[in-house]
Amino acid sequence: MQPVNTQQNILKSIENPKDLKKINVAKLQEVCDALRSLIIKTMSNNPGHLGASLGTVELAVGLHYVFDTLNEPLVWDVGHQAYAHKILTGRKNSFENIRNLNGISGFPSIQESEYDSFGTGHSSTSISAVLGMACASLIKGNFDGNHIAVIGDGALTGGMAFEALNHLADTKANVLVIVNDNNMSIDDNVGGLQKHLNSITDQNNVFTQLGIPYYGTINGNSLQELLEALTFQKTVKGPRVLHIKTVKGYGYHAAEDGDTTLWHAPGKFDIETGKVEKNSSETRKTYQDIVSKSLCTLGTLNSKVAVVTPAMASGSKLLEFKKLFPNRFFDVGIAEQHAVTFSAGLAKSGTLPFCVVYSTFLQRGYDQLIHDVALQNLPVVFLIDRAGFVGNDGATHHGAFDLAFLNCIPNMRILAPMDEQELEAMLLEVSSSLEAPVAIRYPRGTGALNFPFPKKKLGAAIWKIQTVKNGNEHAVISIGAIGNTVKTVLKDLPHSHYDLRCVKPLDIVGLKMIFDTHNKVTIIEDGIAQGGIGSQIISWAAQNGYSNAVKLKGYPDKYIQHGSMEELYASIGMGEIGLRKLLIYFDG
Amino acid sequence: MQPVNTQQNILKSIENPKDLKKINVAKLQEVCDALRSLIIKTMSNNPGHLGASLGTVELAVGLHYVFDTLNEPLVWDVGHQAYAHKILTGRKNSFENIRNLNGISGFPSIQESEYDSFGTGHSSTSISAVLGMACASLIKGNFDGNHIAVIGDGALTGGMAFEALNHLADTKANVLVIVNDNNMSIDDNVGGLQKHLNSITDQNNVFTQLGIPYYGTINGNSLQELLEALTFQKTVKGPRVLHIKTVKGYGYHAAEDGDTTLWHAPGKFDIETGKVEKNSSETRKTYQDIVSKSLCTLGTLNSKVAVVTPAMASGSKLLEFKKLFPNRFFDVGIAEQHAVTFSAGLAKSGTLPFCVVYSTFLQRGYDQLIHDVALQNLPVVFLIDRAGFVGNDGATHHGAFDLAFLNCIPNMRILAPMDEQELEAMLLEVSSSLEAPVAIRYPRGTGALNFPFPKKKLGAAIWKIQTVKNGNEHAVISIGAIGNTVKTVLKDLPHSHYDLRCVKPLDIVGLKMIFDTHNKVTIIEDGIAQGGIGSQIISWAAQNGYSNAVKLKGYPDKYIQHGSMEELYASIGMGEIGLRKLLIYFDG
Repeated sequence: MQPVNTQQNILKSIENPKDLKKINVAKLQEVCDALRSLIIKTMSNNPGHLGASLGTVELAVGLHYVFDTLNEPLVWDVGHQAYAHKILTGRKNSFENIRNLNGISGFPSIQESEYDSFGTGHSSTSISAVLGMACASLIKGNFDGNHIAVIGDGALTGGMAFEALNHLADTKANVLVIVNDNNMSIDDNVGGLQKHLNSITDQNNVFTQLGIPYYGTINGNSLQELLEALTFQKTVKGPRVLHIKTVKGYGYHAAEDGDTTLWHAPGKFDIETGKVEKNSSETRKTYQDIVSKSLCTLGTLNSKVAVVTPAMASGSKLLEFKKLFPNRFFDVGIAEQHAVTFSAGLAKSGTLPFCVVYSTFLQRGYDQLIHDVALQNLPVVFLIDRAGFVGNDGATHHGAFDLAFLNCIPNMRILAPMDEQELEAMLLEVSSSLEAPVAIRYPRGTGALNFPFPKKKLGAAIWKIQTVKNGNEHAVISIGAIGNTVKTVLKDLPHSHYDLRCVKPLDIVGLKMIFDTHNKVTIIEDGIAQGGIGSQIISWAAQNGYSNAVKLKGYPDKYIQHGSMEELYASIGMGEIGLRKLLIYFDG
Repeated sequence: MQPVNTQQNILKSIENPKDLKKINVAKLQEVCDALRSLIIKTMSNNPGHLGASLGTVELAVGLHYVFDTLNEPLVWDVGHQAYAHKILTGRKNSFENIRNLNGISGFPSIQESEYDSFGTGHSSTSISAVLGMACASLIKGNFDGNHIAVIGDGALTGGMAFEALNHLADTKANVLVIVNDNNMSIDDNVGGLQKHLNSITDQNNVFTQLGIPYYGTINGNSLQELLEALTFQKTVKGPRVLHIKTVKGYGYHAAEDGDTTLWHAPGKFDIETGKVEKNSSETRKTYQDIVSKSLCTLGTLNSKVAVVTPAMASGSKLLEFKKLFPNRFFDVGIAEQHAVTFSAGLAKSGTLPFCVVYSTFLQRGYDQLIHDVALQNLPVVFLIDRAGFVGNDGATHHGAFDLAFLNCIPNMRILAPMDEQELEAMLLEVSSSLEAPVAIRYPRGTGALNFPFPKKKLGAAIWKIQTVKNGNEHAVISIGAIGNTVKTVLKDLPHSHYDLRCVKPLDIVGLKMIFDTHNKVTIIEDGIAQGGIGSQIISWAAQNGYSNAVKLKGYPDKYIQHGSMEELYASIGMGEIGLRKLLIYFDG
């Protein structure tokens, strides 16, 4: 590899794909090298999704070189692998601020560029989106243009990709599905499909069985092979699959040869040594650490405890449990729907499943939660990770909706711990005698307490409102980890502070006490306000004759973009300054 | 076929599978014939799912004869084909009241029988559930027992079935997946998979590609073939697929040779003549009729209008649109996730898609609604069919949650027409200038008005509260078609009545008027109260300083079983009597 600066000269002439098309084909490898260098350099200092984006540099160059990507829609499934695409499509100069507040998004976004044909973030949506666009083209009488989905082997395990392939096979839509096979999800890939992809040698495979012509396998990190294959595909019509193999982390020694899961999104690192910066606090643990530790404890105490994750084993820190109890650990792949109903099946047969899933991805298992778990009242524990803002991943990934969409489900019990100590106590308590489904939602990242903290035995108190501070006649009820910000704000304010703890069923005795003894009640909810728990509490109060002055603060009724957690909370008036103002203003 | 009474004698000796196992194998065909006669006889008078259940009589007999179905879990996917199973497992005498209030459910239910290993209703859940049970068995050290899923070819198109197969392939679980291939969903089947199933002749197919051993094809309506195949399967371990072909409506001439979609759930019929009783009112149309008519009109007026349905073309009455505009009609199969994102793709490329989906099934597309449609603010019209109670299909199918789960989604606009005239006006209005997603939710079945009714041009008034009746200082705000019951109740009561019409965004001007001019406000919501729109309104009022006495009535926080619509509304105090009592009681 050449030094970074020399290489990046060639990028100077490329503002968009039209410029790229002017480059001599012999110089394209140089473009790839420069892109790769720019990605590595930027990511080393401004963390993002490194591994997947390094693997698709040649593909991004090839696609924009060969196709008319302004008029031929190109959708990157998941989208965290689209950094080279972003740099090539007008965002070279803004790339250094990717994922930062007011910077460009880490995912494709239709608001950001006309080259981002469809926003992505969650997995397995690309074929559906592209097929819709292709069918719209047919309706408009455009029978020639291509419509391209780039989908990873991991994303193909998500059921909706299969639904789309099944439909695609039945159409004449000009859809090119590029299977970007790097043999990985964030963690190792799971399931029969991956093995099959690895063994395809002929025209007899899962795609052709469905009736979709198949082309491949080609080396997706070889620019020459790619250009040939894509140029040929430009002449093909109708549905088809092009199967390419790429290497996650390709072209950067540390990522390519190292721990692929680590290098998926490594945080800051030193380019030369490949040393990843550790940003763990010495005195704090993350909520995920507490879950990891607690699940291992529970697994030891109770041989019925099992853990289920839809491809988030490392993200949710479940690898220690996997190591200790491999036969009770189930990474089911990118398959949230299956994860939820599979957990229901485990529970029906007497196992005690902890289904660990990010808040934003639980949206994928919503029907299964209603129809398979709650309707049958099966004792599954949902550990809802990354509830609340997630920070730099942004709008597609915030856990803003779970309190709202869980609250309406009968039989569900919902807990929102304020800190790691409560989380730990809740995990112990619910697993002691579980007879119905329960969800415990907790945020991403570092907790509020110094570690080690004493073990708290809450028992049935996990279902009750906790008095954080007795104060004046203005009560603040906080829901979830935002309670720690409230606590800080109230250090020098006279208000009472209560931690709701249990979101469903509501602690009516506790609420009565609060509404009976305070003139004003402010509810601070770590989630969307519209349709959330604060509204539920206020509705209960009003129907029961309370006329206290009430105020609800939660996320506003709009999608919140990316930025650091602190920046995002501040941006909606839920940082320390905003909450202080809110309370003082409400005091009059 | 023998006369009904003679045949049914053999059923007298069978209370449960233990009795069945005592029957000489030579007599089993007689059992099948008797079961079929009982199903036909019962269904002719007490409507239910006929076609699918007739096709699986031999399978039910075979499975219970060969396997130990008390200890070897058996899960019927979707479950409406499980009538013979129900009769054979302790519910022979209660079968005549199937789907009636306090009668047995039309679907398997774990509360009803220990032979119903897992409740079903929605499609494509069986493999996930059974795999969970099988993994629980492995954890418990039970390596021998079988775990059986019976899944139709239609249900296999649902993505979660694929997610489960992908995971299954990677396990050693003793799971027998029986693919019950009758070449049909409710409507004709869709997609590449069905064609593939039809063409399988060897060991090279989609199942073996995934790594799951495949057995078949065998005639699933031949008792002898089935018994042989199942007996052999009893000796096999690990994951495997048995592919059987059955005929929907098998053994009843009218259903087998007639219109398969009609005979899926035909309503009452004359056994001899096969004549189906028409229960359409002469003076009323259904909401579905209005949608059908309106979509055809819109399709004529605007060449951008397209219709998308996940396998509910006949249920939602979309066949007329399909006939008129085949290239703008998309039945995507049982694939709600794909249906939603496919619609988003259509919209992104300038088409105006109407995505028609039952309320209960939209739960399957929830993440796609949040992540692909609303986040990108794409103009998709969701026609949410069967919102509110659906009647005899019961707990798995009620559209109780849509108002609650949609309300929290930013950018969504939600309309709940009170009657067919409003529905028609809303369809016309939203399609005139759509720039953002909108959902219109309407109930199953017959509307409130005589047909033909005059066309109402509401224009922007669809977004505003409608005064149904000015009255005293107690206002009733109704949400959705329940407003017609309210209207009837208020004929001889002095209350004011308002039809909310637009659920999101709330008509704040209208609400202020109501809260300013009434002491009491009762909200009647055609959906679950917890987390619904009534709470939202009350929360808004309380935060804005209103201290009117308020009362909210909606569905209670529990799953409601099956029965007629009237019975169900009455059972929760939302029939005429209940609502009258509620209002008078609140008046004091």
